[in-house]
Amino acid sequence: MTDKLIIFDTTLRDGEQSPGASMTKEEKIRIARQLEKLGVDVIEAGFAAASPGDADAIQSIAKIIEHSTVCSLARANERDVRAAGEAIKPAKSGRIHTFIATSPIHMEKKLRMTPDQVVENAVKAVKLALEYTDDVEFSAEDAVRSEMDFLVRIFDAVIQAGAKTLNVPDTVGYSIPALWGERIKQLIERVPNSAKVVWSTHCHNDLGMAVANSLAAVMNGARQVECTINGLGERAGNASLEEIVMAVKTRRDVFTCDSRIDTTQIVPTSKLVSSITGYPVQPNKAIVGANAFAHESGIHQDGVLKHRETYEIMRAEDVGWTTNKLTLGKLSGRNAFRTRLQELGIVLAGEEALNAAFARFKDLADRKSEIFDEDLQALVNEEVVTHISEHYRLVSMRAHSETGELPSARVVLSVGGQERSAEMQGGGPVDATFKAIEQIVQSGTELLLYSVNNITSGTDAQGEVTVRLAKGGRIVNGQGADTDIVVASAKSYLNALNKLDTEGERAHPQV
Amino acid sequence: MTDKLIIFDTTLRDGEQSPGASMTKEEKIRIARQLEKLGVDVIEAGFAAASPGDADAIQSIAKIIEHSTVCSLARANERDVRAAGEAIKPAKSGRIHTFIATSPIHMEKKLRMTPDQVVENAVKAVKLALEYTDDVEFSAEDAVRSEMDFLVRIFDAVIQAGAKTLNVPDTVGYSIPALWGERIKQLIERVPNSAKVVWSTHCHNDLGMAVANSLAAVMNGARQVECTINGLGERAGNASLEEIVMAVKTRRDVFTCDSRIDTTQIVPTSKLVSSITGYPVQPNKAIVGANAFAHESGIHQDGVLKHRETYEIMRAEDVGWTTNKLTLGKLSGRNAFRTRLQELGIVLAGEEALNAAFARFKDLADRKSEIFDEDLQALVNEEVVTHISEHYRLVSMRAHSETGELPSARVVLSVGGQERSAEMQGGGPVDATFKAIEQIVQSGTELLLYSVNNITSGTDAQGEVTVRLAKGGRIVNGQGADTDIVVASAKSYLNALNKLDTEGERAHPQV
Repeated sequence: MTDKLIIFDTTLRDGEQSPGASMTKEEKIRIARQLEKLGVDVIEAGFAAASPGDADAIQSIAKIIEHSTVCSLARANERDVRAAGEAIKPAKSGRIHTFIATSPIHMEKKLRMTPDQVVENAVKAVKLALEYTDDVEFSAEDAVRSEMDFLVRIFDAVIQAGAKTLNVPDTVGYSIPALWGERIKQLIERVPNSAKVVWSTHCHNDLGMAVANSLAAVMNGARQVECTINGLGERAGNASLEEIVMAVKTRRDVFTCDSRIDTTQIVPTSKLVSSITGYPVQPNKAIVGANAFAHESGIHQDGVLKHRETYEIMRAEDVGWTTNKLTLGKLSGRNAFRTRLQELGIVLAGEEALNAAFARFKDLADRKSEIFDEDLQALVNEEVVTHISEHYRLVSMRAHSETGELPSARVVLSVGGQERSAEMQGGGPVDATFKAIEQIVQSGTELLLYSVNNITSGTDAQGEVTVRLAKGGRIVNGQGADTDIVVASAKSYLNALNKLDTEGERAHPQV
Repeated sequence: MTDKLIIFDTTLRDGEQSPGASMTKEEKIRIARQLEKLGVDVIEAGFAAASPGDADAIQSIAKIIEHSTVCSLARANERDVRAAGEAIKPAKSGRIHTFIATSPIHMEKKLRMTPDQVVENAVKAVKLALEYTDDVEFSAEDAVRSEMDFLVRIFDAVIQAGAKTLNVPDTVGYSIPALWGERIKQLIERVPNSAKVVWSTHCHNDLGMAVANSLAAVMNGARQVECTINGLGERAGNASLEEIVMAVKTRRDVFTCDSRIDTTQIVPTSKLVSSITGYPVQPNKAIVGANAFAHESGIHQDGVLKHRETYEIMRAEDVGWTTNKLTLGKLSGRNAFRTRLQELGIVLAGEEALNAAFARFKDLADRKSEIFDEDLQALVNEEVVTHISEHYRLVSMRAHSETGELPSARVVLSVGGQERSAEMQGGGPVDATFKAIEQIVQSGTELLLYSVNNITSGTDAQGEVTVRLAKGGRIVNGQGADTDIVVASAKSYLNALNKLDTEGERAHPQV
């Protein structure tokens, strides 16, 4: 018999803690809908106590998700647990995930608590959480560096208190598979009533082994894995959902469990997360990297006619790699546009948003001969984003560069409804454009990152530019897409400025 | 006692097989020098029988490398082994690495040989290789899907024939650590005289476990690991050198061996390989990703004063992450420039190349206030590349874009010494520029990839553009750097065209 492997996705919580990956509520909702389509069992939608904005986003997601459990993280204290409980209230199926650190170094230096106090707080938090939902998960932060006896004690206590899922995190990405599997095995053997709960693992990738450690836990009895799309997450990231799911599926001979993930949704989900967070996926990334299935592309040159299975253990189409489909062109009407958005699972907020998006589509179709799904995604990203807060808006611009002269740019912005313009020189047209914007806005932000991705191939492809700006300790990403890279750059810069204008501070927990 | 773990780097062979990652001889030499500085034990410099160009590159590397063994791959046939033997002849320490497939599916469908014939060919190849060097390695391709009894038989035979290193590859990236470790353990137990040879492993990353599988092999007796910088390689790539080295070093409590790698050279090597191949490293990549140590950047906002060790298992400086150092400015002279290049390990071919690079440096310093090491690397990349073959050269250009108009570009090229110009419109200034170049050149290539990376941060940073062009089944990468992204794009496009002009066809083996 095949057990069920529960896939707990924390892209919206732990993934979002990556520098500059913070998302707006609308962006989170789009990802949550896609995660539901992917078939994720649990969506950790955020950390309610972090900020009112986080709580609001969790609540909004809880309202619309039908087939996945929606979860909020909470430290083991009353305020956090109550915030989480309120946030998940609208959910058809809601979970509270409470945690406390259990390693000597964390208990002493971060919590300044005795082990007894830590157990007491954990038990209290679980009991309080049960007032809101019977689906309560408990995590022992930094379990990798915790003493086994103490782990057994605290897990025993929280099971008695009513926790249904026990999560064992490798918070610092320190473990290796043989040891991690052994640790899970021992815990399951030693903790009383361990068969009554679901054991879970949450691994970080600092030594490149998050996936292998997670799978070692599964081979030793864990039946929930906490992971993120594209392995997004702080530092070297979390375990990759796509790698775990495909390893378990591909190696049915080894694993006695399987997930209910619709694997054909893996690549679309990966692309959506990458586009919204501005985190690129390297070409040599397993499953979702552009080259992952490149042996299909006819580039082998060794002259040996190979049977498909000679070098293939998975099929590209199984994980949702399909060739770009021509979807719409210059002559496509409003209905075709709306229908295609619906097919892509994109929901716009009302007729006005649809009209604005359609106008942008027509404008793009004038400049680009073929419009692909990816172009529509980018167009709508922009639409959704600009609809939230558009204090700064690009009215028009001009950029000129010529060998032997300093490049220059003239930018006309609408700032809170008023038109203002500036012209500046710079090292290149993008630099000149940013300088002209700063001349008007005077934001004093620092540019941390500037990156460009082609949304589709071909020379008339749209470029999607991501800029990462820092100001006073806060970091935001802005995106902008256009067939003109300089215009896309201006849009992305303004998008980031608009985000800085609206987003608040948040606490960032570690699990 | 701590055993030595032999680090066998195959960035220049298996890494180079990534689509579009093929390198010129000069690029390979630069990487080989850096690998030597990193302290790699064996540099697999190529596959001599693939093409005269490959053989020449291996020979050139063999001539200059002093402290690492230089190796060539060879299929198990006379022509390949002789080509490898000739190529490594100049090496102080040279190795021939011969391989043949041992899985039923490969023997039947690719080789069309019986198992007896496969053993016979392997033994013959090893004996022939011994005529050139006493350092002979044998690989059983697709060992992961080979029958254990047959592996024991063929390894026994090649040990008797004189092979010193036996490599066990997971060619298709199919294994998981627990099974892979067990396979290595069984082989070492069952193969007669196994203690007389070094056992090696070579893992691919299709399920995201190349590093974990390699380490499972090490825990079970392997003492050589085959890996690449940044995990470069076909499909999802090879095992990452940096992750393996740092895992073994960080977990001294688990591993009874260690490498002689100078870990402070890891990040510089990663950057060099990324820049030359055009393969970006994603931010959430372990060890060498931009965020790998981002917990040091002050972005934790949870208000808890953390001791360094609370979330840190390695130090950024141990792997060569240092802040950008201001190295040169507008007033720096020729000697300072030369000295800094020497410190960076960059060797230019003669005074003429130095003069040309210095002129470019002065030109850059006019447009960019601070020149970092990364800028110098980019400058020299360009210098080295353009020195090889410059059939197409950018003389001057102009690009203009303005809201409401189609962007346009005018390009003047020198084509084989003759000046020619064209002006075109396009979806953006980059598109217009590429179209103007194509108007002149009429290459008929297909643009597969266009990517931009900032070399340093700040708004006046240089952008490094990579384009990947395909023509008649061949794929090349071109790079160009400039503070003006449109100019950098033109340079990268011309660089790729020049490479298409000069590079020949090659065979690409699988191990």
